[in-house]
Amino acid sequence: MKIKIKTALISVYDKNNLSEILSTLKKHQVKIISSGGTYKKIIDLGFNCKEVSEYTGSPEILDGRVKTLHPKIHAGILNKNKDKIHKKQMIKLGYENIDLIIVNFYPFQDILNSTKAHDKIIENIDIGGPTMVRAAAKNFEYKTVITSAKQYNSLKDELKLNNGKTSKQFRQKMSKDAFLETAYYEAVISNYFNKLSNDKFPSKKIIFGEKINKLRYGENPHQEASVYSQNTFSIKQLSGKKLSYNNYNDMFSAINITKVLPKNLGCVVLKHSNPCGVSINKNRLGSLKSAINCDPISAFGGIISCNFKIDRYIAKELNKIFLEIVIGKGFTNDALKILKKKKNLRLIDTNTLKKSDTNLSVISRSDNLLIQESDDIILDKKNFKVVSKIKPNKNVLNNLIFAFNVCRFVKSNAIVISKNLSTIGIGSGQTSRLDSCDIAINKMRKFKLNDLNDNICAASDAFFPFTDGVEKLAVAGIKAIIQPSGSIRDKEIIKLANKLGLILVFSKTRHFNH
Amino acid sequence: MKIKIKTALISVYDKNNLSEILSTLKKHQVKIISSGGTYKKIIDLGFNCKEVSEYTGSPEILDGRVKTLHPKIHAGILNKNKDKIHKKQMIKLGYENIDLIIVNFYPFQDILNSTKAHDKIIENIDIGGPTMVRAAAKNFEYKTVITSAKQYNSLKDELKLNNGKTSKQFRQKMSKDAFLETAYYEAVISNYFNKLSNDKFPSKKIIFGEKINKLRYGENPHQEASVYSQNTFSIKQLSGKKLSYNNYNDMFSAINITKVLPKNLGCVVLKHSNPCGVSINKNRLGSLKSAINCDPISAFGGIISCNFKIDRYIAKELNKIFLEIVIGKGFTNDALKILKKKKNLRLIDTNTLKKSDTNLSVISRSDNLLIQESDDIILDKKNFKVVSKIKPNKNVLNNLIFAFNVCRFVKSNAIVISKNLSTIGIGSGQTSRLDSCDIAINKMRKFKLNDLNDNICAASDAFFPFTDGVEKLAVAGIKAIIQPSGSIRDKEIIKLANKLGLILVFSKTRHFNH
Repeated sequence: MKIKIKTALISVYDKNNLSEILSTLKKHQVKIISSGGTYKKIIDLGFNCKEVSEYTGSPEILDGRVKTLHPKIHAGILNKNKDKIHKKQMIKLGYENIDLIIVNFYPFQDILNSTKAHDKIIENIDIGGPTMVRAAAKNFEYKTVITSAKQYNSLKDELKLNNGKTSKQFRQKMSKDAFLETAYYEAVISNYFNKLSNDKFPSKKIIFGEKINKLRYGENPHQEASVYSQNTFSIKQLSGKKLSYNNYNDMFSAINITKVLPKNLGCVVLKHSNPCGVSINKNRLGSLKSAINCDPISAFGGIISCNFKIDRYIAKELNKIFLEIVIGKGFTNDALKILKKKKNLRLIDTNTLKKSDTNLSVISRSDNLLIQESDDIILDKKNFKVVSKIKPNKNVLNNLIFAFNVCRFVKSNAIVISKNLSTIGIGSGQTSRLDSCDIAINKMRKFKLNDLNDNICAASDAFFPFTDGVEKLAVAGIKAIIQPSGSIRDKEIIKLANKLGLILVFSKTRHFNH
Repeated sequence: MKIKIKTALISVYDKNNLSEILSTLKKHQVKIISSGGTYKKIIDLGFNCKEVSEYTGSPEILDGRVKTLHPKIHAGILNKNKDKIHKKQMIKLGYENIDLIIVNFYPFQDILNSTKAHDKIIENIDIGGPTMVRAAAKNFEYKTVITSAKQYNSLKDELKLNNGKTSKQFRQKMSKDAFLETAYYEAVISNYFNKLSNDKFPSKKIIFGEKINKLRYGENPHQEASVYSQNTFSIKQLSGKKLSYNNYNDMFSAINITKVLPKNLGCVVLKHSNPCGVSINKNRLGSLKSAINCDPISAFGGIISCNFKIDRYIAKELNKIFLEIVIGKGFTNDALKILKKKKNLRLIDTNTLKKSDTNLSVISRSDNLLIQESDDIILDKKNFKVVSKIKPNKNVLNNLIFAFNVCRFVKSNAIVISKNLSTIGIGSGQTSRLDSCDIAINKMRKFKLNDLNDNICAASDAFFPFTDGVEKLAVAGIKAIIQPSGSIRDKEIIKLANKLGLILVFSKTRHFNH
């Protein structure tokens, strides 16, 4: 059923294009009701408008906290136009229909970004606005609700098309958008209160985000996908093709790894959400080369993330191989020029990257959500204990901790072999820890045959359940091993390490990552 | 600041323990205002109560749509007790303070579960209730808001402790809970509207769930975690220790795989969210044995999911190895008796498992959400095309499709080798497809040395970028390969297959799974 718009109530925080929509409403002879700042603006713009308090006959009180919360307003919005009893009641009380509600809210996230003052934040929680929006959205059979200045053009078109009326289809669509606005508004408020009392796992959990990009497709072409962000999206793309779902996934993983590496030294090659080479080196070109050389075959078509500014030397080296994405903490102009020669190559700048607001990790499984704190514990030397007779020197200990830190980001079961603060073999994603050892060892042998006589270290993301894994690594030439403790065979493993002349370091924390 | 509760407004859908809280309020001489069904109930219970319409002097109209939306109510809730101007305005208008709001809503999810009638669903959207709750929650500096019968005891204790008053700390906690209720209520409504118009990726996305279990910890002991569900949680645990985070994750993955296997024939062994053995067989004991034998080392400490009822023969076989979880589509009493001997073993019944309501997959990366449709496409023969000169017979084609269907659930890059509808080698989670081939071949050789002369099939989750992978598989004894098409070298691969006398089948869909 088409409904003629005769009366509109307007109360907007975002006053963009207000004049345009008022002109449209004037053309269709719509009466306007408003209050507060919106009322003043409408008058300033030269349009006729009745103030809410005049309309209801009730004064605006409590610093504007109570103005539209009045039965004349809400009966006007909530009555069913075609219901005879409703009609009778409305006439008896002298209430009139309100056909159109144009209301938008001060975005609550913006308030949170602009102040930490609790009182001010609370004062900005809108009560009247959401109530009118919810009432109109519920009664979409008869009422039209507009919750964003972006919808003005659609409303204009709709009114033009239907000669001052709106269709039910249009009203239902606006109602859907309206409930999305109120639900989102409420989710942000609720999240604020939960954070205030550090309640990470309340009885009901609401996760929310604004759309950053509609993606061409998901992990595979038959899956639709989009990327959302709870906060301002602070990663900048400087050049190249649009990021795909798998690009986003890999990019986030790569940035996560480079974040924990020492500043301005670290480099990661990543593919299929697993690192295939990681290195830290004061010589940044050396860092890049070592990361690639860990597994040059996997690096092909992968992504590289550096936690330093990319200069022309790095850029030239990067351009030698086919990559999907290059991530840098800034780029020199020279470097940009060189890298932009590859039109498709996606260049990502993390210079403006903000600290994450949420430290929760969420995955969905059908209707279920598995939510946990992110594994962002910072490891320092207190996290580790040397348990072998032979003690590591500083270099070996640093190399062990480096390997362990990389291992955290490799899909479980994970084994990482490293040398001189560069990975030389990564074994990932196996159901048996022994198989991960084999894979890491095979990679090491494949690409690093010539220089295996140095002090080679290995890290495991969880404890070895038996001694066989440790033995296998020792036989392959590994001199020092770092692993979480916790197996009932820890003592046997220490004994074996001592027998084989290995350095063995235990970590207090485990780092499964599936 | 402690605030004396003098007047309370009560409007509850859940009338449990109403009498108890009314007694408490009476003891503290609190005046009660109410309306509709709650008013009748209060009077029936023998307590004094003033009807809202009498309190406001405005009639309840529009079938109850407008009753509490009145300035006298909302000024009563929203005024700042200590603000002189507020006080003056209240006195002038004859408005009184309302100190306590007890309001709970008809759970919207229950409405959706009970009816498909759009009109009835819409009619149940509460406007007045959430408005009062939001107003009181905003004004927690002065007002107390109770949104669940579960909070009555805390309120009782609080009033007793403070001699009829509430503390700010208490009020703020109740306010936090209140915004969680309104946010969740709104999220469910918004989701209903989005589903109605099949809007899976709106401009803002809200994901929600009710807590099913607080977990001991997450993937690792230093991570807090909980599991939530958007719907009734329909998986039943019959016995054994509490499920851990990793158990849940693996259990969901295992159930997902058995769901796509032919009914009542399929068996999956899973660990670290990767299958390490899958089989389908009319002889169910054979199915189980084949699934385990694919990689008996990985099966140790893993979980087994059967899409059939577990009887005593299956149970006896299961008891031979150490498992974390056994999942069955029901258990015979015999079987339960046998399996329950292992006190820790978690037994899961999927007989009551409901179809999933959401077909979206969500993962979070810092503040960002990657959301995509689940990869739940059903593959039939139309999805595949034989491209080699040699054509597969029915058995080989079935075996190929089986391998491909398993491959979808193996972490990418994934290679699955199968024989007689059982996997005999699974290569998972590699950055190089060649490495996945090696892993699958090595597993096949390790555990199946004696019977490699049959028709062995292999599946790949994505296309081979080069011919080397196909060649490697052929050299290892594989006779038929199934893979997605899409490489610029597809023609070369077909040529090689024909040269080597291989059967080659192309799939139209790719199935990355990271």
